[in-house]
Amino acid sequence: MATGTLPFVVNRHKVPLTLILLTYIDLLHCQLFVIPFKAPSECGVEEFFDISSLSCVRCGPNQRRSTTGLSCTCKTGYQSLTTDKTSLTCQQCPTDKPVLTKDGFGCIRCPGSLIDEGKCKCPKGDVLVERDVNGNLLVEARCETCNGNSPAFSVPNRGLCFPSGTFSTNVNPSVNYAQLKFSVQSAWFVKNLYSSAAACLVFSNLTACQALGNMCVMNMHSLSGVSADACGLFNSIFRSRAAASSTQDISYWRANLPWLYYGDEPGLASRVLQTDPVPIGFSFRGKKKNTDIKLHAAVYNVRGEFLRWEPVGGGNLQLCPETATRQKSAFSFGTAYHESCDLSVAELWGTHPEPLFYDLFMELGGEENRKLLPLPQLVYNQQYNGRFINQGAGMKNWYLSRRMFLVDMLSGREKESSLPKVIRVASSVKIRFQLVPRTQEGQVFPPLMTVTYKDVPIMDINTQTVSTTFAVEYEMDQSEARMKTDTALGVMGGMAVLYSLLKTVSWKRRIASPLIDVETMLRFLLFYAGDLANVFFAVTVGTGLYWLIFYKAQQFVSVLLPLPAQEEQFVTYIGCAFALKAVQFLHKLILQVSVDIFFIDWERPRSKATTGETKRDPSPVSIWRTYFVANEWNEIQTIRKISPTFQIMAVLFFLEVLGFSNLALRDPWPTLQRSSQAYIPSYSLMLRYGLAATLWLCIGLLQVIFFTVFHEHFVEDKIRQFVDLCSISNISVLLLSHRCFGYYIHGRSVHGHADTNMEEMNNNLKREAESLCGQRGLLPNTDVQTFQVSLTNRLRSQYDRIREPLSRKNGPSRLMDASTANPFDQNIRAYHTMNHFLGSIIDHAHPDMDYIVKDKLVFERVIGMEFLEPNEKSIFYNDEAHSFSDMLFYGNEATLLIFDTLFFCVVDLGSQSFVLAAVLTYIQQMLFRLIRNFLGRKNLVNKTLVDERFLI
Amino acid sequence: MATGTLPFVVNRHKVPLTLILLTYIDLLHCQLFVIPFKAPSECGVEEFFDISSLSCVRCGPNQRRSTTGLSCTCKTGYQSLTTDKTSLTCQQCPTDKPVLTKDGFGCIRCPGSLIDEGKCKCPKGDVLVERDVNGNLLVEARCETCNGNSPAFSVPNRGLCFPSGTFSTNVNPSVNYAQLKFSVQSAWFVKNLYSSAAACLVFSNLTACQALGNMCVMNMHSLSGVSADACGLFNSIFRSRAAASSTQDISYWRANLPWLYYGDEPGLASRVLQTDPVPIGFSFRGKKKNTDIKLHAAVYNVRGEFLRWEPVGGGNLQLCPETATRQKSAFSFGTAYHESCDLSVAELWGTHPEPLFYDLFMELGGEENRKLLPLPQLVYNQQYNGRFINQGAGMKNWYLSRRMFLVDMLSGREKESSLPKVIRVASSVKIRFQLVPRTQEGQVFPPLMTVTYKDVPIMDINTQTVSTTFAVEYEMDQSEARMKTDTALGVMGGMAVLYSLLKTVSWKRRIASPLIDVETMLRFLLFYAGDLANVFFAVTVGTGLYWLIFYKAQQFVSVLLPLPAQEEQFVTYIGCAFALKAVQFLHKLILQVSVDIFFIDWERPRSKATTGETKRDPSPVSIWRTYFVANEWNEIQTIRKISPTFQIMAVLFFLEVLGFSNLALRDPWPTLQRSSQAYIPSYSLMLRYGLAATLWLCIGLLQVIFFTVFHEHFVEDKIRQFVDLCSISNISVLLLSHRCFGYYIHGRSVHGHADTNMEEMNNNLKREAESLCGQRGLLPNTDVQTFQVSLTNRLRSQYDRIREPLSRKNGPSRLMDASTANPFDQNIRAYHTMNHFLGSIIDHAHPDMDYIVKDKLVFERVIGMEFLEPNEKSIFYNDEAHSFSDMLFYGNEATLLIFDTLFFCVVDLGSQSFVLAAVLTYIQQMLFRLIRNFLGRKNLVNKTLVDERFLI
Repeated sequence: MATGTLPFVVNRHKVPLTLILLTYIDLLHCQLFVIPFKAPSECGVEEFFDISSLSCVRCGPNQRRSTTGLSCTCKTGYQSLTTDKTSLTCQQCPTDKPVLTKDGFGCIRCPGSLIDEGKCKCPKGDVLVERDVNGNLLVEARCETCNGNSPAFSVPNRGLCFPSGTFSTNVNPSVNYAQLKFSVQSAWFVKNLYSSAAACLVFSNLTACQALGNMCVMNMHSLSGVSADACGLFNSIFRSRAAASSTQDISYWRANLPWLYYGDEPGLASRVLQTDPVPIGFSFRGKKKNTDIKLHAAVYNVRGEFLRWEPVGGGNLQLCPETATRQKSAFSFGTAYHESCDLSVAELWGTHPEPLFYDLFMELGGEENRKLLPLPQLVYNQQYNGRFINQGAGMKNWYLSRRMFLVDMLSGREKESSLPKVIRVASSVKIRFQLVPRTQEGQVFPPLMTVTYKDVPIMDINTQTVSTTFAVEYEMDQSEARMKTDTALGVMGGMAVLYSLLKTVSWKRRIASPLIDVETMLRFLLFYAGDLANVFFAVTVGTGLYWLIFYKAQQFVSVLLPLPAQEEQFVTYIGCAFALKAVQFLHKLILQVSVDIFFIDWERPRSKATTGETKRDPSPVSIWRTYFVANEWNEIQTIRKISPTFQIMAVLFFLEVLGFSNLALRDPWPTLQRSSQAYIPSYSLMLRYGLAATLWLCIGLLQVIFFTVFHEHFVEDKIRQFVDLCSISNISVLLLSHRCFGYYIHGRSVHGHADTNMEEMNNNLKREAESLCGQRGLLPNTDVQTFQVSLTNRLRSQYDRIREPLSRKNGPSRLMDASTANPFDQNIRAYHTMNHFLGSIIDHAHPDMDYIVKDKLVFERVIGMEFLEPNEKSIFYNDEAHSFSDMLFYGNEATLLIFDTLFFCVVDLGSQSFVLAAVLTYIQQMLFRLIRNFLGRKNLVNKTLVDERFLI
Repeated sequence: MATGTLPFVVNRHKVPLTLILLTYIDLLHCQLFVIPFKAPSECGVEEFFDISSLSCVRCGPNQRRSTTGLSCTCKTGYQSLTTDKTSLTCQQCPTDKPVLTKDGFGCIRCPGSLIDEGKCKCPKGDVLVERDVNGNLLVEARCETCNGNSPAFSVPNRGLCFPSGTFSTNVNPSVNYAQLKFSVQSAWFVKNLYSSAAACLVFSNLTACQALGNMCVMNMHSLSGVSADACGLFNSIFRSRAAASSTQDISYWRANLPWLYYGDEPGLASRVLQTDPVPIGFSFRGKKKNTDIKLHAAVYNVRGEFLRWEPVGGGNLQLCPETATRQKSAFSFGTAYHESCDLSVAELWGTHPEPLFYDLFMELGGEENRKLLPLPQLVYNQQYNGRFINQGAGMKNWYLSRRMFLVDMLSGREKESSLPKVIRVASSVKIRFQLVPRTQEGQVFPPLMTVTYKDVPIMDINTQTVSTTFAVEYEMDQSEARMKTDTALGVMGGMAVLYSLLKTVSWKRRIASPLIDVETMLRFLLFYAGDLANVFFAVTVGTGLYWLIFYKAQQFVSVLLPLPAQEEQFVTYIGCAFALKAVQFLHKLILQVSVDIFFIDWERPRSKATTGETKRDPSPVSIWRTYFVANEWNEIQTIRKISPTFQIMAVLFFLEVLGFSNLALRDPWPTLQRSSQAYIPSYSLMLRYGLAATLWLCIGLLQVIFFTVFHEHFVEDKIRQFVDLCSISNISVLLLSHRCFGYYIHGRSVHGHADTNMEEMNNNLKREAESLCGQRGLLPNTDVQTFQVSLTNRLRSQYDRIREPLSRKNGPSRLMDASTANPFDQNIRAYHTMNHFLGSIIDHAHPDMDYIVKDKLVFERVIGMEFLEPNEKSIFYNDEAHSFSDMLFYGNEATLLIFDTLFFCVVDLGSQSFVLAAVLTYIQQMLFRLIRNFLGRKNLVNKTLVDERFLI
């Protein structure tokens, strides 16, 4: 026999037996448990608030609600009869014994008229005696004066008597700290465990049952088959009620007991969490805007007393101090909330001397008929026979439970008044919402609350801290999105293979080599890298933009952002895109700086033509026009269709100054400015990428449009200027990007001579402006000056033969010293031979290496490949689009823009700093521009014999 | 006669009269009040804690400490005798009446043996009668049974009796809300004001005095001469104690009364606040690091009971919820703290049903002998005869006070249980520390706490919010720093006048005009603008850097940052610097784009020289070399000694990525990374400016060093390249920046001809490298190619005469059309004439316009002025420093760098965003570069006749 000191409230209502059967039938089908929301104040006058079932229950006959409203008592003059262990019957006292005994279970007569509130009353200093020493009720009570030595104001002992041997084994009052691998003989458990369990089992005492449940919760809901610990006792009582009753139609919630566990049927967790959606629709905007998550908690103290209903939202689950505004935004649907902090143990000691226990519910429905959905809870620390069952990722092994606490400073005490040896703190409370797949109305499954407790051994209460986290997460099944992404990648990857094959074939034709060798394979891989990079880029930007638009702009919630862990694959794709794009970019760079180029000077010495008789050297043709053209060619190597620095600045301006970066926050609000008071959630990598890439591309596109449409028409067009310069300076340019393919800019002056003085120069320009001379085109009466050329093998062989001696070294950059002299005469000869040879080719002077001029077919343009092979004659394709700029940065804007975009985004994803990304992107652009300029100049010097010192 | 219900603790100790005289002598000299720190638990067994004086006081004879420790009572069996109104005497009861009456003031016999704790006791249901109906004490007490109809458990009324007419007038129990311009008849004041005042005055009841004081505090310490309101009553009691006693040696703290006011002597505030430093030294680092401000508050409830000593630091003065770490940093010396938030009135209603009153002290000294310094307090709302005396800036009118509250929901209630009509909230609590001038040990004056209350009329408690601020500020006397700044400005401004005068004189000489006209004045102002801008810039950067270094690096606190309001003058200076610099920059820009320039072509037709007999036209000299040189000149217009974009990126990188911006925070920590948990104070404009400007200048300087030392020697030197190009291309350049002053680049080819083919060109270069030909200099056997030239008036006039017809318009940019023909022949003629004329001048072919070559004196170089006037002969000064670059951006790097720095800083000061400043600086640089290029090109076309279409 043991005696507890808890102020138990005795349960005195009859179980509605009719419900029991219904319960078992219903609940196997419907896993979504919903109960009506009742507050104690809402119960009628003849009802009491059952703190176990959280509902109003009618009192029995002759009973009335007690003052607290949480139980029933017999009306005055009615004695309580214990007919069975769980209910109360009231019977009127007989007229000869009209007064109730103190305990309310018997009737008695009072001495004299000393009656107070229906019970006998003795004068102060006297004590009321109702039973004899054997415990039998007297007929008339007596007042006996107390012994003067002992105080007369002893509080009546309200303990209960239990039949001995209620439980077969001795109870185990120790609390196990699994993280620390030791147990503590808890003073609280020693004092209250047996008595609570017995009072709950024998008398169905409501508070005793709650107190027992609380002890089980303090023991992490952990069950072990052998030990009679708190949860073991709870479970044996739970099992003993199996056939008797259940509460609120929920089979796991037995009458009078707290609901601590969901069942242990296999797969129950996934059925509870992923079968029936919550009948509520979240919506981010519009008339039906609904983003409020209304949680309520039934709060019990450690003694099992029901304290109150609390709306969750302030600091009750959030231990970290924060402003109310920020704490509230944890319960705004769609805002990923995460708040961590270190709390001083001393402070917790002051604010949480005893643990409070929370049963959490989510409110459904409108004002009138408020319903509650119990939140399933996963205790990370829960053990089953010593095994941590809830720590695996697989939902099928989970044991769901209910009821949690935040701070427990009580169970770890070995003496009641001492400091605890260990405290337990809910170091992580995480509420996870999962969206119903393919919902259009913002429906979610029942949210899961995951609680992780931390055992903190107390060394020095004043210096110790404990870290705690509160988080709300939103999740949807990403497998469909992932499948779509993978499908898109697969399909487009396949097309990329085809396109790369086409490019390889085109390349083979242009180098006029029919063999498939290792280099061919390598080229194919290089082309494929570029195309695959584009595929990855398109898919990732598309995905990012999709999330940006659909998440931020949806009305009814239909998509939720991937969690950080789900973003890994996406980041991998971006990494692939960047790496492949870098390969393509470097490949193009190498091609550009190794192109074959030659400037054909058409100018012939004047004196020869005018006077045939003089045999002396004609005055030499000035090289300065070639220098001028080479210098200009050198300068347009790295011009682009955009201003790269303006690009960076503009992107930075939008992201950091105008606050576009706020669009990448993990909340549904598409606003650019956030108040400094508001909660700022973390960034979504996906949104950051989608935002940055889109912004970069958009601004890039606007710049391209501005430069190609406005700037080049009204200010200056560097490419056009170069072509004009060729024409004015009487110099043609032959560019060979492949062995047998290249570009030709026809620059033969229509005036015959360009090497002249200012007067004639201006006259020439004037005559041309007035259309007094021929047109500039290669063919008579045409304007077309630029061509793509497919050369015959013979022509190219001849070209190579002449070019052979052209291999020079280069000196320092001063113009003064020209120390490289020895092989130079040879080079000069080769230069003149080449000039003469190419000139005569263009002039159709070599019948065996003649050429024809034709238009390219549209399809040929589209796939970038020539159908005709230049067997007999070389072919010059008209090319008014100046496609020779493909050999410059200018013609590869798309590649450069995408490379820059990816570079910017990759740096940002790694550092979460747009500023750093901008700075590094600038450095990267600058470096590659310098490299391209340097190597391009070297190449120009090698191929055209123009001294490097004139390329300034 | 009125009765209060407050549980007054009666003061029962004797006033130590000996102290009174000492007090009055001491306190007129020493304004720094310091008291020892005593807690109630520290008092001895025969002492009680006097809640008025906050010290331990010995109980009288036959007395013992009461259970609370806050008063004394007579020992058991001793009756209390009221000998005077302020102390208690205990006398043993006579043996025939051995028992004390309930009130302790009389002795009596008990009926029977009913004695309990030394007083008579009746059985339950009976009531003890000690006096007859007239109030006279009975000899023996009686127990009388109560009437059964009325409950017998009435609480004995513990009120006090006051002689009627204690106060001459009726008291005024209304609370005045000056902000709302109405009063409320407060239930609390109605009930307690008179009784508290009377109990305080008549019985010197300690809690009654505190309660009266609290009511005065709730009335904003406001005094009016006529009304007997709370403060009026307090003051009349205060005055009545004038000669009697004072507490803790402080004359404004009378015995038994709370200390509410400092005196009203004129100038007291400044004496209290600025005379004696607090004997404590703050230090930011080192062994003696001391940054903790330890404040303690004696907390009283509204009933006047002393609750506890509280260390200030957590949330007790800070209503805004924040993490403990952040709240704590409010009391870290040197960290400017400012925390604002909106609080819900409903929440305040829950947490602050009754006001608490705080007497604040600052802790001094070590562990053992802890001393407290009372914090003087300024109540912004305090009125004196209806006038707000503390709202002026002048300290001399201030009335200092003590005791404050945070939230008062009590005084605004008209009924005890109703909602208040108005609540009062301390909307701003500001603690201001002032550094002792010229301290080297971190000493401060007593800190001042300024409290501003806000009256909030209650409409709807659930939706109303009230904003509240808590701030800690640090201030030092800035007048000395300001004087130094102004002195520096004055001195350097004077020097700037001299320097500008010198520049003006030099300018006058260079334009060869002796007249002092309006233009001269204008020029002087323009020069002065530039020099003054430099002065402002130097002073502001120096000041900013001074604060940055001295504030962030000091060990013992000797300087504190200026407050935001004190920074205004500084910001004005920056504005001046920027505006003046902009004027200078624009002036230079205009000068640069209007410079006179001519390319002298030395090339002569070849055929002429070789064969004298042929009379036909010689083959013309090619204009392409001139085009080439002009094109290059056009390209070097806007090159700089730094890369402006790299500059921006580097500054941004340091500030935003590496976290240098954290150095500008208003705290003493020189760390770059701040934890996200830590409190982030606001930025100091001064530090921001000092930091940004210094960083900008340093990076700029490093870049200049890199470019001039490394890049120009090992990679390329554009200026040098241009000079070389002139030499190779046989073209000289004459630049005239003033009428009679300019620059000459001698480019005559040492080979005689440059208009030749590649072979000869390379041979020429080779020969020159091998030193097989003459040197490039103007004088034989010299290398000097660049000169500053002072022209004679005659030469310039001739130059102008030739140049006269050169005035053209310009067409669009295509090379094809040359529509501007009519005045062109004239121009060409002028061009040839000029070419010939200048060539012959250089060749000494005009004896009347000859020139000499000489070195410039060092002093001439330093002051930028020529001493010799070119009267007879022009003077060519050797100039190996290529100072012709002064006509380009290149030679004005200092101006550009400072302009950019100021632009960046001004944008940042306006927007507090380095990113925006960077973006706008980039745009500004780009715009001015475009403008400079555009106008420079136009000028070049106008002056040299080179067609614009070749300047690409």
